[in-house]
Amino acid sequence: MSITPQSGFARLFNPRAIAVIGASPDTTRIGGQPIPILLDCGYAGGIYPVNPKYQKIGDLTCYASIADVPQPCDLALVAVAGRLVPDVIRQCGKAGIAFATVFSAGFREVGVEGAALETELKAAVAESGVRAIGPNCIGTMNLVDRVYCGFGVGFKNPNLKKGPVAFVSQSGGFAYSVVALADAEGIGFNYIVSAGNEADITTLELAADFLERDEVEVLVLYLEGVTDGRRLRALGARALELGKPILTWKAGNSAIGRSAAESHTASMTADYELYRAAFREGGFIEVRDVHEVVDITRVFLGKRMPRGSNIGIITTSGGSAVLMADECDRYGLKLPRLTDQTTNAIEQIAPKHCALGNPIDLTAQISGNNADFNSIVELALNDANVDQMIVRYGTVQGEKGAAWARDLAAIVDKAGKPLIVSLGRTPDTATAAIEVFAERRIPWVLTPTRTAMAAGALNQYAEKQRHYLAAQARAAKRSVARQELALPANAARLSEADSKKVLAAYGIAIARELVLAPAAIAALKESPLKFPLAVKIDSPDIPHKTEAGAVRLHVQNLAELKEAAATVVANAQRYKPGAHINGVLVAEMAAGTEVIIGVVNDKFFGPVVMFGLGGVFAELLKDVTYRFAPFDKETALEMIGEIKTAPLLSGYRGSAPLAVDALADTLARVSQLAADHADRIAEIDVNPLFVNVHGANAADALIVLKN
Amino acid sequence: MSITPQSGFARLFNPRAIAVIGASPDTTRIGGQPIPILLDCGYAGGIYPVNPKYQKIGDLTCYASIADVPQPCDLALVAVAGRLVPDVIRQCGKAGIAFATVFSAGFREVGVEGAALETELKAAVAESGVRAIGPNCIGTMNLVDRVYCGFGVGFKNPNLKKGPVAFVSQSGGFAYSVVALADAEGIGFNYIVSAGNEADITTLELAADFLERDEVEVLVLYLEGVTDGRRLRALGARALELGKPILTWKAGNSAIGRSAAESHTASMTADYELYRAAFREGGFIEVRDVHEVVDITRVFLGKRMPRGSNIGIITTSGGSAVLMADECDRYGLKLPRLTDQTTNAIEQIAPKHCALGNPIDLTAQISGNNADFNSIVELALNDANVDQMIVRYGTVQGEKGAAWARDLAAIVDKAGKPLIVSLGRTPDTATAAIEVFAERRIPWVLTPTRTAMAAGALNQYAEKQRHYLAAQARAAKRSVARQELALPANAARLSEADSKKVLAAYGIAIARELVLAPAAIAALKESPLKFPLAVKIDSPDIPHKTEAGAVRLHVQNLAELKEAAATVVANAQRYKPGAHINGVLVAEMAAGTEVIIGVVNDKFFGPVVMFGLGGVFAELLKDVTYRFAPFDKETALEMIGEIKTAPLLSGYRGSAPLAVDALADTLARVSQLAADHADRIAEIDVNPLFVNVHGANAADALIVLKN
Repeated sequence: MSITPQSGFARLFNPRAIAVIGASPDTTRIGGQPIPILLDCGYAGGIYPVNPKYQKIGDLTCYASIADVPQPCDLALVAVAGRLVPDVIRQCGKAGIAFATVFSAGFREVGVEGAALETELKAAVAESGVRAIGPNCIGTMNLVDRVYCGFGVGFKNPNLKKGPVAFVSQSGGFAYSVVALADAEGIGFNYIVSAGNEADITTLELAADFLERDEVEVLVLYLEGVTDGRRLRALGARALELGKPILTWKAGNSAIGRSAAESHTASMTADYELYRAAFREGGFIEVRDVHEVVDITRVFLGKRMPRGSNIGIITTSGGSAVLMADECDRYGLKLPRLTDQTTNAIEQIAPKHCALGNPIDLTAQISGNNADFNSIVELALNDANVDQMIVRYGTVQGEKGAAWARDLAAIVDKAGKPLIVSLGRTPDTATAAIEVFAERRIPWVLTPTRTAMAAGALNQYAEKQRHYLAAQARAAKRSVARQELALPANAARLSEADSKKVLAAYGIAIARELVLAPAAIAALKESPLKFPLAVKIDSPDIPHKTEAGAVRLHVQNLAELKEAAATVVANAQRYKPGAHINGVLVAEMAAGTEVIIGVVNDKFFGPVVMFGLGGVFAELLKDVTYRFAPFDKETALEMIGEIKTAPLLSGYRGSAPLAVDALADTLARVSQLAADHADRIAEIDVNPLFVNVHGANAADALIVLKN
Repeated sequence: MSITPQSGFARLFNPRAIAVIGASPDTTRIGGQPIPILLDCGYAGGIYPVNPKYQKIGDLTCYASIADVPQPCDLALVAVAGRLVPDVIRQCGKAGIAFATVFSAGFREVGVEGAALETELKAAVAESGVRAIGPNCIGTMNLVDRVYCGFGVGFKNPNLKKGPVAFVSQSGGFAYSVVALADAEGIGFNYIVSAGNEADITTLELAADFLERDEVEVLVLYLEGVTDGRRLRALGARALELGKPILTWKAGNSAIGRSAAESHTASMTADYELYRAAFREGGFIEVRDVHEVVDITRVFLGKRMPRGSNIGIITTSGGSAVLMADECDRYGLKLPRLTDQTTNAIEQIAPKHCALGNPIDLTAQISGNNADFNSIVELALNDANVDQMIVRYGTVQGEKGAAWARDLAAIVDKAGKPLIVSLGRTPDTATAAIEVFAERRIPWVLTPTRTAMAAGALNQYAEKQRHYLAAQARAAKRSVARQELALPANAARLSEADSKKVLAAYGIAIARELVLAPAAIAALKESPLKFPLAVKIDSPDIPHKTEAGAVRLHVQNLAELKEAAATVVANAQRYKPGAHINGVLVAEMAAGTEVIIGVVNDKFFGPVVMFGLGGVFAELLKDVTYRFAPFDKETALEMIGEIKTAPLLSGYRGSAPLAVDALADTLARVSQLAADHADRIAEIDVNPLFVNVHGANAADALIVLKN
C-alpha cells in the first residue's frame, strides 16, 4: 500500500474506479485522451466513460449520465464544456463520487464571466461535498500505482521513471516540461499534480498531503502565488520537522511595491519579500532551473545531513579544485584545513607534489589507483573538521568503476556524513558506478559549479533545520505581555503622538515629548524640555508632515520654539485645510544612528516586520531584512546581524558598539504589538529610531489602521 | 585550407609530420599514448617515435635521437623526464622542428627546484627558436584537420563533434571535462588547447591566434590568471571588432585585497576586480557552468546581433511566460508592449482568451497550428519594438516539426533579428527540427531560465560592441595635457600637500590651503583662511594622519587654530619620532557629499581607477566601480552613473543635483595623471573629494610612489 492512511486524498490519486465525464472517441479532443492514457499507463481499475452521444468508446460501454454508471467510482475526470461543470459536480455528489479532476477551461482565467462560473462551481463543490482539483488543469499522475489522469503530451509517456519525489505545480504545461527534462537526467517522480485554478483543492493542501507520505522524500513546488501565506509558513515548518525539503520554483517576482501604501515600509515591500521571508524560515529551497531540481533532489535522496558548514574537497584536477573552492565559498560553505593528524596520514598515501590543503588535489597521478584514492577519502571524511565532502575522480568506467563506487559507499555508510560525487564526464561513461550510487544513495552531480550548488543547498537546509529546532526548544519568550489598546474605531491612522503612545504601551522608549496647544506655546516663559527640540504638527490627517512643511528640527531656544510652532501650524492648515489638529508636538531630539522598523500587515501573510538602517540605506540600497511577527529578542538579534550595514551598529572602525540589545528588544516589542493587534493595525513605521550607546529611542512613528 | 595565412601557429596545430620524443610501447605511460591517439583520430602526416630504447613502436620505426628523424617535422611531442626537456628543445631547434608541445611535468608546479628547471627551459626556448606549449600540459586538439596531440582520457574520443568554437584552457583536465559535456549537448570545438605552465606560448597568445581564424566564431577561455593584463584587454577589444565573443570561465576569485597596500583604494581592490574591469569593457562574457558555455555559444552561432535591449516572448504556457519575463528582467532585457498595429494584427489570428501583451501566451489552444503560430511570430519579430525574440512552442516532433522549423528559419532570415527557440522537451523529441535549426543557424536552448540567460548574454555583448564602436568613433579627448612632474627620486610617498600639488598640476580643484611652520601659526594675528578649517600634519612619513592623532577638523577660530596646530605637531612627533615634518597644513573645509577616487597601478594591468561614495558606502558596502586609466569624461560619467548610490549625486528626493560634470572632469584628470606617470606613481587616494552643487574639491590626497 503506497498511500499512508492519514491521507484524505488516497482515493483521489489511487481511485478504484474512474468515471470520464464528457468522454469522446476523438483523441484530438481533451475528452478523448484520458481513456487511452489510462489504458497505456496500465491502470487496472474500472473506467466508465459518460457521454449521452455514444454507446461505446473503444471497447468500453459509454453511459448516458453519471447516475447510470454501475460501479461506485472514486474519481470523476471532467472534460465537459465549462458551463456544464457545476451541474456535473452536483451529479457526482449524488452518485457518491468523492473526487473530481476538472480539465474544463473557461473559468476565472478568461475574465469576469468565467469568474462568475467559477463562483458557481465553488458553490456546487460546497453543496455536493465532492473535492475537486482544477478547473483549467491538465491532471494528476501517480507513478507508484500507475494512474495517469490527464491529457496532453505530458501524459503520453508511459515510460517515465518513478522516484520518491512529488511535484505540485500552478502551471500544468510547465510542470510536465520539467518532469521530462528531469527524467532525462535520471530523476523520477511518484506524484505530479497540476493544480489549475484551485477553485477547491489548493496547491498548499496538495503539498501538505504529499509531504506526509513515506514515498515522498522531496517535494517540488512551482508557485506563482498563494492566498494563504500562513499555511505556506506552516508547510515550511512541517517540512523541517520531517527533514524533507521543498524545492520551490517561484515565478512572478516583479519588484513592484504596494503603491497604495501610506507607510514607508509598505511602499518598500514587494510581495516577493514576503515569500522570501517564508522560504527562508521554513524547509524551502528556492530553485530557478531544472538542473537545480535534479541536483538538489539527488543530494537530499542521499539521506545524510551535514552537522555544520565545513566541506572537504578531493579532486584529481587543479582546475576543478579551484572552481569548486570558489563556488563553495559563494554558497556559504567553509573549507577548513584538515587536522594535522589527517593531513599527515594522507601524505603517507598521496602521490608526490599533491596539494594537501583543502581542496586536496591528488592530480592525475592517482588515476586508476582506486584503493589509495578511497583510503584518502576515508581519512578526510572522518576528519573532525569535515561535515560533508565532494569527491571528483576520473576513473569511474565499467566494472572497475562500480567496484570503486561500492567501496566508496561503504566508507560513506560508516562515516554517516554526506558525500557528493562530482562527475567529470557524461553519465553514460559511468553507468555501472551510477547504478551503485543509485542503490546505495550516493548523490552524484555533473560539473563543479552544480556540485557546489547542491552541497550548498544541503548545508542551507541543515542550518535552517538546526535553527528551527533550537527555536522550538527555547520557550517562546515574550518581551512584553499583551496590552489592551484604545484604538479609535473609525480613524484611518493615528497621529504621531498617539502612535508613540501605542509604542510606549508596549514598553518602547520614545523621546521625551509633549503635545501643546499653539496658544500654550506662545505663552511659555521657559522650555519644558531640553534643547535641541523637534517641533511638529500632531494630526491624524497629516501622515507626511515633512511634505506639509509641518516639521522643524534642531530648535535651539525659546524664541525659535515659538516661531517654529506658529510656522508648523500655519503650514499644516495651508497644506490640509480642515485637518484635525491635536496640537504641536515638541520633542527632545535624540542623537545616534537612524534605523527604521516597520510593519506591513499583509492580507495573505499577516504582519511582517522590516528592519534596516534609515534613510539611504533602507530606501536606496534596500539593505533591509524581514521576519514574520511575532518573534523574540533572539530572532531580532539575528535580523540586526544580517543587514550589510550591521557593523555600523556593532562598533565600526573603533567606534563604541551601540545598544544593540535595546534595539533588539524594541524590534521584538514592535513585532509583538503588530501580532497582538493584527486585527486593527495595517501598517507601522518607526522611522527614525535613534540608536546610540545608551539605548534606542523612537523619534517618529506612524500607525495606519485597518478600516 | 582551414588555417588563415596570418596564423604563425599554423604548423603547430596542423603539422605535416610529428616527432614523438620519449615514445613508449607502454600505453599506460604518457609517452605511450600520443601515437595510438594520433592514429585513432585519423592523422594523415608522418609520425616519428624517438627513444633510444626501442627499434620499433607498433609498426613505426623508432629513432634513437631527434637528429636521426628523416623527414623534417613541424612539431615535437615531448614526453621525456622533466630534467631532459631543455636539452630536447635544443635538439629540436637543431633538427629544424619549429614547435614543441611538452607534456612532461616537474617544473614550477612542484616548487623551487622545478622553477629552476623551468627557467632553464625558457633559456632553451629562447636559444633554439622553438616555440613551445607547456610544460605540464595535456596537449592540443585540432578537429578540423583531425590532429589530436595529447594524452589521457580526453583524447581517447575520436567521435567528438567539430564546430566553429575554440577552447584555450589553463587546466587540461577540466577543459576536456567541459568538452565532453558540451559535446553531449551538441556543441563541438574546432580547436582545444591546454596551455600548461605557459613557459613560452601563453594562453593569451593562443587566444589571439584563434580569434583571427575564420573557422573560429566563438572562443572559450578557462582562466586562473594572466601576467599580461594589457594583452587581455587588447584581446577583448579585438573580439568586439571581430564580433566574436570570448566566453570566459575565471577561477580563483578569492576576495582578498592587497594586504601590503598603503592606500585605501589598493587595500580594497582584489585581483578579480581588475579582471572584471577587463571583462566588462571587452568582448568577454563571464560564464560559470557548462550549460552556459553551450547555450551562449549556440546563440552566438546564430550570427544575428540585437540592435537594442527589447525582447519579445511568445509561448504556449503561462508558467514559462511568467518565468521568462522574470528571468529576462534579471538579465537586463526589456519587455515592451508591441505596437498597437502589431497587437491588432496578432489578435486577428490568435486563439480566444490569449494574453497579447509581452510575453504573448498563445496557450495550448494553438498547439499543432504551425501556420498561425509562425504568422504571429513573424508579426512580432518585425515589430519596431522588438530587437530579439524567444519562442517556446510544444509541437516540434517529427517531420511536421521540421517543416515548422523551416518556415520559422525563413521568417528569421527575412527579419534579420535574433530569435531563440526555447525547447520544452528533451532534444531527442525534436531531432528533425533541431537538424533544421543547426543548418539554418537558429539557436535553441533548454528551459526558460537558460533561454533568458542566453538572450541576456547576446544583449550584453551587443551593448558592449555598440559602446566600444561609439568610443572608437569619438576622438579620444584628453581633459588636460600631459604635465611634467618633479617627483622625488627616492621617496616612498608624497605628503598631503605635495600630493595635492600634483593633483593641482592636472587641474584638479583643491580646497584653499597653506602649509605653515608651527612657529608661524603661533604668531598669527588673524587667520589667513576662512573658518572652519582643517588642521593636519604635512609629512611624507605619516600617510595615516588620523591614526597618528595629527588631524583636527572644524576648527572655528584663531585660538582653536593655534591650539590645534600645536597638538597635531606634538602628536605627530610622538607617533613617529624623527618623521620629516614639512609643516602644518591649514585648509578651508569644503562641504558636500564625500566621494573617493583612487588609483591602483597593477603590475599586470597597469593603472586602474576606482570611484565610489566615501566612507561606509565604499568600504563596507563596496559600492565602487573601476575603469582602466586613462579615460575621458564620457567614461567618467558612466562610472558615476553605475554605482548604486548614484542618485545621491544626481539629485535624490528633491535635493539639488550636485556638480556631476565637475566630478567627471576630476575623475578623467586623475585617470590621465595616473596613465601619464604610471612609471612613477603606484597608488593614489583622493579621499575624500567633496562634491557640492558648485563643484568638486579634493580635501585629502595621498600619492604613493614606485620604488
